[in-house]
Amino acid sequence: MPSVIAFLSRMSPDYQRPYLDALRRALPGETIAPLAALSASQREQVRVAVVANPDPADVAALPGLLWIQSLWAGVESLVAALGPGSPPIMRLIDPEMSRTMAEAVLAWTYYLQRDMPRYARAQTQRVWAQHPYRKPSQTHVGLLGLGELGQVAAARLREAGFVVRGWRRSPKTLDGIETFSGEDGLNAMLGSSDIVVSLMPLTAQTRGMLDAGRLARMKAGASLINFSRGPIVVTSALLDALDRNHLSHAVLDVFDVEPLPVDSLLWSHPQVTVLPHISAPTDHETAAQVIARNLREFRETGRIPGNVDLARGY
Amino acid sequence: MPSVIAFLSRMSPDYQRPYLDALRRALPGETIAPLAALSASQREQVRVAVVANPDPADVAALPGLLWIQSLWAGVESLVAALGPGSPPIMRLIDPEMSRTMAEAVLAWTYYLQRDMPRYARAQTQRVWAQHPYRKPSQTHVGLLGLGELGQVAAARLREAGFVVRGWRRSPKTLDGIETFSGEDGLNAMLGSSDIVVSLMPLTAQTRGMLDAGRLARMKAGASLINFSRGPIVVTSALLDALDRNHLSHAVLDVFDVEPLPVDSLLWSHPQVTVLPHISAPTDHETAAQVIARNLREFRETGRIPGNVDLARGY
Repeated sequence: MPSVIAFLSRMSPDYQRPYLDALRRALPGETIAPLAALSASQREQVRVAVVANPDPADVAALPGLLWIQSLWAGVESLVAALGPGSPPIMRLIDPEMSRTMAEAVLAWTYYLQRDMPRYARAQTQRVWAQHPYRKPSQTHVGLLGLGELGQVAAARLREAGFVVRGWRRSPKTLDGIETFSGEDGLNAMLGSSDIVVSLMPLTAQTRGMLDAGRLARMKAGASLINFSRGPIVVTSALLDALDRNHLSHAVLDVFDVEPLPVDSLLWSHPQVTVLPHISAPTDHETAAQVIARNLREFRETGRIPGNVDLARGY
Repeated sequence: MPSVIAFLSRMSPDYQRPYLDALRRALPGETIAPLAALSASQREQVRVAVVANPDPADVAALPGLLWIQSLWAGVESLVAALGPGSPPIMRLIDPEMSRTMAEAVLAWTYYLQRDMPRYARAQTQRVWAQHPYRKPSQTHVGLLGLGELGQVAAARLREAGFVVRGWRRSPKTLDGIETFSGEDGLNAMLGSSDIVVSLMPLTAQTRGMLDAGRLARMKAGASLINFSRGPIVVTSALLDALDRNHLSHAVLDVFDVEPLPVDSLLWSHPQVTVLPHISAPTDHETAAQVIARNLREFRETGRIPGNVDLARGY
């Protein structure tokens, strides 16, 4: 019996095509196709769906579906859309994505440590002014979230000489990185970091976590990098903290609504760097290889995989 | 007999003070003072002068001077001012400066590889547009100059995954870095680098080296970083190459005249990042320690040191 994998996505055809091409190269023996291209009997054969923002009705149209492979690392909207009755979900864990994200964290940490936004503003005013140089060994970076991405980013920053601390929901000892947890730990880390980086998943607990109160606990003059999900930061509170110069700068790659609406105040704020969700683009080839490996393991062992806790949301 | 070291500089008192303080801490047994503070007999005792842009007349006023320690790594103006009859010169070689410069090279290489200038322009236009991501392993960085600074920068870039090649005047094999030399080597490197970084000293040979002809040999769409000396690049030719979009961007930390005059076209060019000579600021403490070590070695061995070839100019 030929293997059939459903590819379910409401993204644009241009977005879908490179994924489909790479998956077909990585899984040459399989039929991989959108729902509309599958016959009724093929739909019944589907045990695995690869998804990126799928229509929940398409998922429900696969009676024999055993598990779902997301093309994305962040699955909060998928979990919300499919509800507690969802088949087990595998979110994408690709070492190449961890590498790319760690590189982005280091690149924009340098951007802030090396005062690039300040020198860019000086250039527009034709002002030649040197500011004191702060070495990495004098720069404290606080990472929010110490999962797959956070741990690799922490190691990368430490190799570059930065003083790195991390915060996670529950206590855990990690090699070579000072780790905080709980509310007290969060306040301690926010209060002593020159740069705070969010790599946290979006959950009921993290939504709005960086609100006015938490931003006020940040060190005066500190900066924020948000590379995970927009709603973790309360935008109005962030703008207020920047306007009062309590915070120096924010680098934002993610927003409440994406693309960022053209009338957003963030676009024109001199202390905000707006990026169009580019910190860690998926590598179609390595992603397809990870997915192929998951699928082969399932075929060989019969074990249904899943790395998403539906109740926790990530 | 007490030791007397002359400190000769035409820089501002604010510039001189931290150096003097650090040198006095590093050399507690010595008298370190400007010429004006030294008596006639003290002037006769001076064997070593520490200098930063000294008045040549002050150097000539020290009849027993045996050698000169520069506070700077770049000594082309000192060599020119003192002429071929100068006492031996030590330019500053501080590992901490090599580290800081290598960090700057990596930070601004990321700035270009991660398309930060392009995303900054898009932000001013409120445009949300993702550009293809180019991995370090797909990004060729060509270093001009493989001295103290260049070798450390090359290692740092290689660790970060970039494809690194280096060019130097005369052939030399260096560990783990493809090395070009001579005119053919220069053209080969310019033609195949996505990012070219100048760390070369300013000499008769390197002055105007990156002229219209050499910039034309650079890869279409490539970028330039100049962290060494302004006159190595012919500014009008650079502006022309940027205007024709042959080159994408230039990051300039050094200029023909510094501070950069307020009417320079570079300030307002959208494809130019102007930095006020901040890529590798001297660390007063580590510089003083290096100088103290050179001085103690001289006292112990009696050997007059010198690491500047007066004829070559660096």
